[in-house]
Amino acid sequence: MPRKPASHDASATPVRRRGRPQGSGVAAATRERILRAAVYRFAQSGYAQTSNQDIARAAGITSGSLYHYFDSKAALFHAALRHTTVSLLETYRGACRDAAGQSVVDQLCLGLERVIALARDWPGIVRFGGNAAAEIRHNRELDWLDSELAAAFPDFFRDLVRQAARHGELASATDLEGAAGLLLALTMGLSISHDTDGDEEAFAARVRAYERLLRGELFQGKHLRK
Amino acid sequence: MPRKPASHDASATPVRRRGRPQGSGVAAATRERILRAAVYRFAQSGYAQTSNQDIARAAGITSGSLYHYFDSKAALFHAALRHTTVSLLETYRGACRDAAGQSVVDQLCLGLERVIALARDWPGIVRFGGNAAAEIRHNRELDWLDSELAAAFPDFFRDLVRQAARHGELASATDLEGAAGLLLALTMGLSISHDTDGDEEAFAARVRAYERLLRGELFQGKHLRK
Repeated sequence: MPRKPASHDASATPVRRRGRPQGSGVAAATRERILRAAVYRFAQSGYAQTSNQDIARAAGITSGSLYHYFDSKAALFHAALRHTTVSLLETYRGACRDAAGQSVVDQLCLGLERVIALARDWPGIVRFGGNAAAEIRHNRELDWLDSELAAAFPDFFRDLVRQAARHGELASATDLEGAAGLLLALTMGLSISHDTDGDEEAFAARVRAYERLLRGELFQGKHLRK
Repeated sequence: MPRKPASHDASATPVRRRGRPQGSGVAAATRERILRAAVYRFAQSGYAQTSNQDIARAAGITSGSLYHYFDSKAALFHAALRHTTVSLLETYRGACRDAAGQSVVDQLCLGLERVIALARDWPGIVRFGGNAAAEIRHNRELDWLDSELAAAFPDFFRDLVRQAARHGELASATDLEGAAGLLLALTMGLSISHDTDGDEEAFAARVRAYERLLRGELFQGKHLRK
């Protein structure tokens, strides 16, 4: 969930694709396998410490073949980030659609449940998504980002908070930008807490405690102002 | 707030200090200035993209002088991390002491208010603390950490959650490790959301929304199970 970059325009630096057309069966499947391997390896070791060879090996292809699909590690990172962002966003948006009519918190909790399932199904996606902003900030060659993509998650949480405010579900006098920024920050914190290998139960326990917190149920007692 | 490393023993790799004794007036002040500059620069640009020259310049000394205090960038990182962790932890612990007798949520909220003040006073400390675990994970030369230090924040939140459970302030059937891990993850997420330069009002707004969330007050409405 990358944050908005200062002034770059992604249209000025398109990702060129060599060779095989994206849609063709085997090529598309290989491209998907490479992206999944990249997400996993970047999540596990970080961008700087991951080589194209590592990714090719994880995808079960040669480094030479990898260059048919992606020009550079930076291009691969951005394709993986685009893929990841779209997948995570679609997960949350699908939950919001399916829970439309319920509260914003219900929608968000359904989204979180689906993210638990997604994390099991696609190793590394959650941590990679959470780390992306820091990776871009800390690696000079990644110092640009499609601005629409960068704004997607902040916008998603902003829309959610506005919806909550419209429906009287948000405490009065809440700073909307503060609340939206909070949900984004907490989602990123939870994401980077995910350990790429074998942390699924512990991650699910944290997410479920988060759902209780969102529902106002985690803490209780006479000392709370309620 | 770094996480526990696998099997390294920090006592095997002590930080050597050259030259001037740590306690002597001018030297101690210079050392403190270097650490502050390091925290700020690491927070701003990340470990890999920060040079000793950058830090020396920010501290107003020569690179040569810097080596009288720290052998290497990695030694400087770890001294900065130790300093930062102790400062942040003392901020939270002091709040818990001052709010002893109040609820765990009250204690935590007082700690968060003090962190807002600390962030204003010491540029970079919050983001640096939040990023440290990722930095250590993603830079090979930082691949070890004092295990006591690494456990300090996880232990702090674990103790807090246990205290809440003992006092009947935690929802029944809550997974204690999940709740403690959640608080740690959310704190890290909030920390890395801090922009090192001039983000103070926005950061404070996010933290205050977080306090409302902890109190169970951020979201409301008929759809919530309350």
